[in-house]
Amino acid sequence: MAKDFLQIEGLSRDDLERLLSEASRNLPIAEQKVARKESLTGRVVANMFFEDSTRTRCSFETAVHRLGGEVFNLSESGSSTRKGETLVDTALNVEAMGVSAIVVRTSVSGGAALVARRVRCPVINAGDGRHEHPTQGLLDLLTLREGIGRLEGRTIAIVGDIANSRVARSAIHGLSTFEARIRLVGPPTLLGRSYCDLSGRPDLVTIHHDLDAILHDLDAIMMLRIQNEREAGGAVAGDYREMYGLTPARAARLPSHAIVLHPGPVNRGVEIDDTVADDLPRSRILRQVTQGVAARMAVLERVLMDAGTSATLAA
Amino acid sequence: MAKDFLQIEGLSRDDLERLLSEASRNLPIAEQKVARKESLTGRVVANMFFEDSTRTRCSFETAVHRLGGEVFNLSESGSSTRKGETLVDTALNVEAMGVSAIVVRTSVSGGAALVARRVRCPVINAGDGRHEHPTQGLLDLLTLREGIGRLEGRTIAIVGDIANSRVARSAIHGLSTFEARIRLVGPPTLLGRSYCDLSGRPDLVTIHHDLDAILHDLDAIMMLRIQNEREAGGAVAGDYREMYGLTPARAARLPSHAIVLHPGPVNRGVEIDDTVADDLPRSRILRQVTQGVAARMAVLERVLMDAGTSATLAA
Amino acid sequence: MAKDFLQIEGLSRDDLERLLSEASRNLPIAEQKVARKESLTGRVVANMFFEDSTRTRCSFETAVHRLGGEVFNLSESGSSTRKGETLVDTALNVEAMGVSAIVVRTSVSGGAALVARRVRCPVINAGDGRHEHPTQGLLDLLTLREGIGRLEGRTIAIVGDIANSRVARSAIHGLSTFEARIRLVGPPTLLGRSYCDLSGRPDLVTIHHDLDAILHDLDAIMMLRIQNEREAGGAVAGDYREMYGLTPARAARLPSHAIVLHPGPVNRGVEIDDTVADDLPRSRILRQVTQGVAARMAVLERVLMDAGTSATLAA
Repeated sequence: MAKDFLQIEGLSRDDLERLLSEASRNLPIAEQKVARKESLTGRVVANMFFEDSTRTRCSFETAVHRLGGEVFNLSESGSSTRKGETLVDTALNVEAMGVSAIVVRTSVSGGAALVARRVRCPVINAGDGRHEHPTQGLLDLLTLREGIGRLEGRTIAIVGDIANSRVARSAIHGLSTFEARIRLVGPPTLLGRSYCDLSGRPDLVTIHHDLDAILHDLDAIMMLRIQNEREAGGAVAGDYREMYGLTPARAARLPSHAIVLHPGPVNRGVEIDDTVADDLPRSRILRQVTQGVAARMAVLERVLMDAGTSATLAA
Repeated sequence: MAKDFLQIEGLSRDDLERLLSEASRNLPIAEQKVARKESLTGRVVANMFFEDSTRTRCSFETAVHRLGGEVFNLSESGSSTRKGETLVDTALNVEAMGVSAIVVRTSVSGGAALVARRVRCPVINAGDGRHEHPTQGLLDLLTLREGIGRLEGRTIAIVGDIANSRVARSAIHGLSTFEARIRLVGPPTLLGRSYCDLSGRPDLVTIHHDLDAILHDLDAIMMLRIQNEREAGGAVAGDYREMYGLTPARAARLPSHAIVLHPGPVNRGVEIDDTVADDLPRSRILRQVTQGVAARMAVLERVLMDAGTSATLAA
Repeated sequence: MAKDFLQIEGLSRDDLERLLSEASRNLPIAEQKVARKESLTGRVVANMFFEDSTRTRCSFETAVHRLGGEVFNLSESGSSTRKGETLVDTALNVEAMGVSAIVVRTSVSGGAALVARRVRCPVINAGDGRHEHPTQGLLDLLTLREGIGRLEGRTIAIVGDIANSRVARSAIHGLSTFEARIRLVGPPTLLGRSYCDLSGRPDLVTIHHDLDAILHDLDAIMMLRIQNEREAGGAVAGDYREMYGLTPARAARLPSHAIVLHPGPVNRGVEIDDTVADDLPRSRILRQVTQGVAARMAVLERVLMDAGTSATLAA
């Protein structure tokens, strides 16, 4: 694999399988059922979060600790007029402090790759603008496989503002690699036909504006977070819930084995109702969080192992 | 003991004695006189502070480190309109990351219990609204016993905005359990007779509006922090000092063995004057801070040990 | 040496040599080429940053981790009207938590010494107002010696708002101790003749307002950060660049062996141009960052070793 972990797009099925297997082996550590590893003992990882995300930051922090490493956090407001440069300069400085890897979160689409091209140490994308959120992509795949088994031929809906969602983008690439059928669902104003081609597998992807029409056919439904009116396609929260919210009535029409995912934090009563979000074991929202720690451990070990191997070969 | 550590109220004298003994054994570690323990090695604790408190946050962080564990900090502004739910959702997410315990600080009275009911891992209350601040209660008891010995029959004043103080509340429950005589002192507008019944031991508690009248009779005096006009009962800072501030003149009228406590941070020149705050060994304000680390170590070990025992029994 | 590390001024050449040697021995650890030390295992260091400085804070944090220790961060806005007192009170509290050392950053000139006089634990100055930034001074010396060898008789320019720069102040003291020739360069409005006497070695220091006139004679040039109009002597950014910016044209007129330093973060296009900042190996800006971790490790070990020795002698 490459020096960095920047996106799900372009990863082969073998690459993904290996990462998912490694994450699954880390799961009992993430769950605190067995002792931590020591694979990062003496290593320092930098969490460079230029965009607020307490949960993702804590998840990476926990993953580093579970591997025996140390972590420090940088969170600068990205108010600079030349944000891209600031990002790279900060990353170069952080690298010069001797960190083993840099985790980058930024509002700039492609920002993680921008950093990765300039530093020698591995870079992990923790979400870059509207591009990708690849560790979220891994944890979604882990949770789906745990919940519904093999993904090939299964039908999974992604509901919300697909166009602006890096979570959706990473999921589409991951799911299509495993030959799942993907149903993209959202307001017509936000979801054109071009999204079928995103993954290069238009045969697997269909666009839908009517959520109710496809509920009966789903093995899983991934609800996206609606943060503001723009993301609701101009609709106010109440109207959005009316059309695309996962209400108890809609949840009742899902097949009994179908599971519910959400990247969090949840806007209860908007994209998903309380009783659906808390309906275990159907709702896998908290399970996604635990799988996230396992996934991030796997990614950290992978990029650091690869970096170590390269160093040895070069010596 | 229970899964969590939420309040002093309801703890038996035996419970408290055991915690105080454990804290005292931890004191040399807190003072950095002996090496840290390893009882939390490989464990991650979450500091979930929804209300600013740098000192309490750092004290818990240090306590976790002294036990060999790791800690991560969440501090979200509690600006959500549905703050209670956000608190619980965040706690559920943090638990799903595989932490061993959650330390909660919140402006919501009862917020720690709210969290504790929903997560399976132990919850430690680091101050919840006007309810309790039970680790502060422990450190106050530790400092008092170190300073004046046995508490039974001793007379301790608590001075300030009792009604709104979680510090006072935890102290009242702790002191009454040890049969100390409690003098609650503050402006009549803020301190009614009902506070005598708070601990269920009205025989031990009396209400006073005239601080000068009782100084000669005290074994210890605990000054509360005044943060704003509301807490001063409508009085401005200068007037408050005039009536309830611990000035050198007032301190001179305390018995020579009497000690002075304050939960910090101190508003010098308002509730306590410089020369009194810095008058060692009478002033125990910094000693409280050290005892606080020892107390928090004891609480962390206790809830984690209990959690471990339960897990074993369930297996 | 003293209990604390507060300034370069007053350190003997032997003191400095010893610190630089220790830092150089730490360099491979800072570069992550060899495993971390364990000299701070079980110790907690407090980063008390009352002024924003993500990079310096992370550098100290990394240095502590490389020595096996733990660190916690306090960053309070210094908005209090009685800032000096707040600083001391906070430091006394932090000490009472049992930390092994306190790293202080403050906008108050002399603030680190103010703290050091009141606490018993070692204090390290991470920049105090316009006074000094002594670990920056060490890293500058390390980078210069690595880049141009022996400093005695070499000519080094410091360019910018010397009067308000703690970086300049620490450099002037360090360089004069090693008998380097110092060229202070800046607008006449900001740079009077009194700066020649700062180090007590007026024979080594000269004042210049025309940067172009001295470029050909330099072994190294240290550019200071311009943060606002005040620091540019009233000039706007473009004018400042015109007169004192290190442009490619100016860099071309430096001797071929001369190196470029900057304490960061860089204002690209103001005090230094992109192509100069990124021109390796001439530009040592990122190397300074790595040397900074090594320098801070040496300072931390030094003050803690000295503190340990004292404790033993007292016992």
